Amino acid sequence: MLGLQLPTDPRWVKLAESNLEALLTDHAFCEQKAASNAISLVVTYPDKTELVKTLLPIAREELEHFEQVHKIILHLGFSLGFEQKDAYVNELLSFVRKGQGREIALLDRLLFAAMIEARSCERFKMLSEKIENELLRTFYRNLMESEAGHYTTFIKLAKEYFQKEEVQERWNAFLAFEASIMERYSRQETMHG
Amino acid sequence: MLGLQLPTDPRWVKLAESNLEALLTDHAFCEQKAASNAISLVVTYPDKTELVKTLLPIAREELEHFEQVHKIILHLGFSLGFEQKDAYVNELLSFVRKGQGREIALLDRLLFAAMIEARSCERFKMLSEKIENELLRTFYRNLMESEAGHYTTFIKLAKEYFQKEEVQERWNAFLAFEASIMERYSRQETMHG
Repeated sequence: MLGLQLPTDPRWVKLAESNLEALLTDHAFCEQKAASNAISLVVTYPDKTELVKTLLPIAREELEHFEQVHKIILHLGFSLGFEQKDAYVNELLSFVRKGQGREIALLDRLLFAAMIEARSCERFKMLSEKIENELLRTFYRNLMESEAGHYTTFIKLAKEYFQKEEVQERWNAFLAFEASIMERYSRQETMHG
Repeated sequence: MLGLQLPTDPRWVKLAESNLEALLTDHAFCEQKAASNAISLVVTYPDKTELVKTLLPIAREELEHFEQVHKIILHLGFSLGFEQKDAYVNELLSFVRKGQGREIALLDRLLFAAMIEARSCERFKMLSEKIENELLRTFYRNLMESEAGHYTTFIKLAKEYFQKEEVQERWNAFLAFEASIMERYSRQETMHG
């Protein structure tokens, strides 16, 4: 699915639904971080017109998802908790090359975003198929489609600014790196845990 | 207007329109900073349900304004430049009390946001009345209404979490402080310059 080399351990869903409040809070802040990341790309690369035009609506959409998750949290009688560190995202971030110029960093930041969208999409798909709560099953099915669209958008954007072959090669490296860290995950009731 | 104690020097419009590209770039990043500030409030105070419900749509709206400004920049044949420091905003930020607990900081951060919305609204009104470019006159008239709405929302939010008298007293202090720094502004072709 989306090129992911290691599927999430199916037992993760049971873990996730054992603490829906924690899962949903974590999910809400995943949407926030996705929005903030898109905004940060715009601030860093304002001269890239296509990037600005593409990422501002994505940032808005992520905030809309945050609002939707927040509504569900309240609807289920939960509270939005505080943001926790996302160890998976931080490990993935270490794969973004720094100090090699802004173009190299752009390629990696776009693929970093695509990678998180791809993994989130896989997790949402699993939730949409296996979580017991029916409201959440429907919710995650819809979100899954949106994340798949974002994954495609980030890859397309990378191909807008870099050679197709360079993007493919680096994307393969990202996929391999992501699989190597994912071996240690699927063990927490968080979206990427 | 909105309680502001010192109107912007009317000569500022001439200065602003002498470099529309700089003005519009600065404006785009004002919208971005407003969005990021609203997001940051949500991340810091996720337990305040009303705040989260109110500020996420505001953040989205600010991003939509960024998109609109970006479209105008391209339409006029300009490029979106890089973000510059906003000295006015930074001076105003120094008035936010830190180290006196998260509640005091919340009151001040809400009034800080209301203050910037109020001043921006005044500047937009001036542009909507005096700028020569007709497209921009209409654009700023519409935006002015939206910023006035945001100003009201931030004040309301402050009154949701604090005593009316406490909000009024601190707001008066903000207005006085803002007027004292504004004396040194109206001299640059930026939105708060």
